[in-house]
Amino acid sequence: MSKLTHLNEHGQAHMVDISDKQNTSRQAIAEGSITMQPETLRLIMEGGHKKGDVFATARIAGIQAAKKCSDLIPLCHPLALTKIAIEFTVEPPLAGQEPNRIGIQVLCKLNGKTGVEMEALTAVSITALTIYDMCKAVDKAMVIGNVRVLEKQGGKSGDWRTT
Amino acid sequence: MSKLTHLNEHGQAHMVDISDKQNTSRQAIAEGSITMQPETLRLIMEGGHKKGDVFATARIAGIQAAKKCSDLIPLCHPLALTKIAIEFTVEPPLAGQEPNRIGIQVLCKLNGKTGVEMEALTAVSITALTIYDMCKAVDKAMVIGNVRVLEKQGGKSGDWRTT
Amino acid sequence: MSKLTHLNEHGQAHMVDISDKQNTSRQAIAEGSITMQPETLRLIMEGGHKKGDVFATARIAGIQAAKKCSDLIPLCHPLALTKIAIEFTVEPPLAGQEPNRIGIQVLCKLNGKTGVEMEALTAVSITALTIYDMCKAVDKAMVIGNVRVLEKQGGKSGDWRTT
Amino acid sequence: MSKLTHLNEHGQAHMVDISDKQNTSRQAIAEGSITMQPETLRLIMEGGHKKGDVFATARIAGIQAAKKCSDLIPLCHPLALTKIAIEFTVEPPLAGQEPNRIGIQVLCKLNGKTGVEMEALTAVSITALTIYDMCKAVDKAMVIGNVRVLEKQGGKSGDWRTT
Amino acid sequence: MSKLTHLNEHGQAHMVDISDKQNTSRQAIAEGSITMQPETLRLIMEGGHKKGDVFATARIAGIQAAKKCSDLIPLCHPLALTKIAIEFTVEPPLAGQEPNRIGIQVLCKLNGKTGVEMEALTAVSITALTIYDMCKAVDKAMVIGNVRVLEKQGGKSGDWRTT
Amino acid sequence: MSKLTHLNEHGQAHMVDISDKQNTSRQAIAEGSITMQPETLRLIMEGGHKKGDVFATARIAGIQAAKKCSDLIPLCHPLALTKIAIEFTVEPPLAGQEPNRIGIQVLCKLNGKTGVEMEALTAVSITALTIYDMCKAVDKAMVIGNVRVLEKQGGKSGDWRTT
Repeated sequence: MSKLTHLNEHGQAHMVDISDKQNTSRQAIAEGSITMQPETLRLIMEGGHKKGDVFATARIAGIQAAKKCSDLIPLCHPLALTKIAIEFTVEPPLAGQEPNRIGIQVLCKLNGKTGVEMEALTAVSITALTIYDMCKAVDKAMVIGNVRVLEKQGGKSGDWRTT
Repeated sequence: MSKLTHLNEHGQAHMVDISDKQNTSRQAIAEGSITMQPETLRLIMEGGHKKGDVFATARIAGIQAAKKCSDLIPLCHPLALTKIAIEFTVEPPLAGQEPNRIGIQVLCKLNGKTGVEMEALTAVSITALTIYDMCKAVDKAMVIGNVRVLEKQGGKSGDWRTT
Repeated sequence: MSKLTHLNEHGQAHMVDISDKQNTSRQAIAEGSITMQPETLRLIMEGGHKKGDVFATARIAGIQAAKKCSDLIPLCHPLALTKIAIEFTVEPPLAGQEPNRIGIQVLCKLNGKTGVEMEALTAVSITALTIYDMCKAVDKAMVIGNVRVLEKQGGKSGDWRTT
Repeated sequence: MSKLTHLNEHGQAHMVDISDKQNTSRQAIAEGSITMQPETLRLIMEGGHKKGDVFATARIAGIQAAKKCSDLIPLCHPLALTKIAIEFTVEPPLAGQEPNRIGIQVLCKLNGKTGVEMEALTAVSITALTIYDMCKAVDKAMVIGNVRVLEKQGGKSGDWRTT
Repeated sequence: MSKLTHLNEHGQAHMVDISDKQNTSRQAIAEGSITMQPETLRLIMEGGHKKGDVFATARIAGIQAAKKCSDLIPLCHPLALTKIAIEFTVEPPLAGQEPNRIGIQVLCKLNGKTGVEMEALTAVSITALTIYDMCKAVDKAMVIGNVRVLEKQGGKSGDWRTT
Repeated sequence: MSKLTHLNEHGQAHMVDISDKQNTSRQAIAEGSITMQPETLRLIMEGGHKKGDVFATARIAGIQAAKKCSDLIPLCHPLALTKIAIEFTVEPPLAGQEPNRIGIQVLCKLNGKTGVEMEALTAVSITALTIYDMCKAVDKAMVIGNVRVLEKQGGKSGDWRTT
């Protein structure tokens, strides 16, 4: 196992030098979820059948957060993302049970010098937090979890997929 | 169970009216964690004994994110936080095992018209994402989870604690 | 007619001193519109009956812009808005004709030392620009107009209403 | 008339994929105006003959807003503008009458994958709002209008000019 | 000499708790300067007699930077400034010599719980950097210096003035 | 001596056109310092031997400020920096004396169309201001000075070094 690239030889934080890396096509997919009371999810879905403003608002928040990644994560490079898409899934915990969890999946793309997994992860987190915010009046005990990278493609280190 | 306050009677998003609420002392504590390979955590801790720049960087990122909450979460009110503090814990999964998880706990305080749990949750998430960013060169499979509110105090709705 | 308060006696810009003004309840309503081809509006409305993401996206953009007003307009004071709401109207130019215009109306509220008409106007403008952005692939000739303050209430100068 | 590109097949907002588009030279020109009392314009112009801080302040606000476009308009791609210039014109409504309107024209340029008309339109809007802000103490009834794209050049869809 | 308040008992950064401090009238004045070739200053002043856009641009940059202080300085509290004013002075190094230095003085005011000297210092620094930026094509060797607090008033610790 | 490139022929500010410049490797080094009481520096260094949060916090603030340069300095182009590194030096004023000054040196790199000296200077300034902020409770009379470009490389105008 190699060393932490974001610390120099004295253990000090720096923004890693990517000057000599090639511009290549890159993409990353990250996911996460927010678990809640089944009644809370039902309230969201009812809105969803009409105007969908919980999902629409959370999606916009996530897209904007992906673009702010380098402002939020101190050692991230500023990147000009070429695509951001966010999808929601609603599934019951077990067959026959009432759904209590929203799954969030974010895809980011770039032609650039470094990967975009941090952008995808940031979008997942802010999307989930926006759902929390919009529903907290009825359910303060919601929990955000399983936030992780599913796969990344492109770049010198090659493709990677969670196992 | 009441309705979603962030949607109006037509299901449209709006920023809730807090004009007539009192300025009171409020605080919220949120938590979360990031799970990784034991070797990854060892690399962070070794740095921690010298310069601590992973923890120091993540803490600063979290503090700054708390202040940006209303810019990130669309329907949050802008709030002038009066205190932000972030603590890390490193614990083994079971007695005798090697630690593989960093716990993050954030406290936010305010004298104002609405609660600060979104600020605390945002700080937890960005703190965890910063740890991910700084260690991703050695461990892409880290997972962020258990992001939730532990307790909130102050305001008309009274105190609340997770059970 | 008095002088421009945002310039000092030498004609130089400054942020006006509001230190000694009272905190009072204030609100402002601003409006504007975007005119387009009837077919463009029909495409938006069809989406609106299903998912409404043009209106939902534009509304979120406007709410977030109101909160950024002091970052965008150089001499505006930072203000902690207590309410933001945005409404759309779709009306035909004349009875019996097909609608070709979206009206935007924004309400902002504050307990503070200065008025919130700039926040409301900024929200109207960014809401309209977001509609332009989402529809520009089918209609580049859309025009944004009639952006103005409808009324403001509160503060020493009293209430004001457009005539 | 084709469909709204910023919505996917389910009517959900996304940031359109421009990964495979070429980097080409692009530019856009947008315009708008703010109409006011002739006395208000006279006050601005008197300052203009001395220090010009209304025009100078509004121009800086517009330039900075063009750079913030992707932060303000949710589905805009982040772009590294290579030129921004803003010009003002002051013309009487009819020959022999006193001028009551400031015209604003913004030029933006880019070597990149997508057009810059949103950047130019955003600059026009914030420039106009800054003039409103600086003069609102003497004239609350000013109206911003005629905000539109005049022409755009470059890119696969070719040049476009308003008719 | 007491301890560093921005570090807790473990030497970790935190945002200091000001929840229990009183809202009082506060102000701070900071200064700084930028030294250049006399010819550079002459070029600025010639513009100054016509349109003044170097000074006007630098002043706007400084005012906007004061408002961004809590976003730039990690442990600063967000504050709602009630006044910002920036003045320039141009003085010869010795009587009879040609001037080669611009002095910058910034005044910030607040009704709030903590002092505003960081806001004033940030405005001085960004004002000076903007002058550097606008003149660097003719003079890369300009030096910014003497950036410091001149005086602060209000708050529990009382007034302070540099000696 | 040529003219100020950031003003057009009418003395008005604009963002200079770099559309036709080549993308080349560029870097800049800037420096500055903050002078304080020897006791203040001793307090920082003691922390430095343990957790180093003053230096770590100031370094992160500087790195983030470099990325915000085009948002702070009105006529700067947005640039995608490829490396940022910040180093501190602590030296006594004269041999045998106690140190009273922290030197700050920032390196920025880019593959792009224009130089990065403003990014490096901005990072120096915000790094110094963060040190001021963290120590102001014990030493309000600290002074930031000698902020200047040491060298820049790359681009059509060739390399430059301070003399």
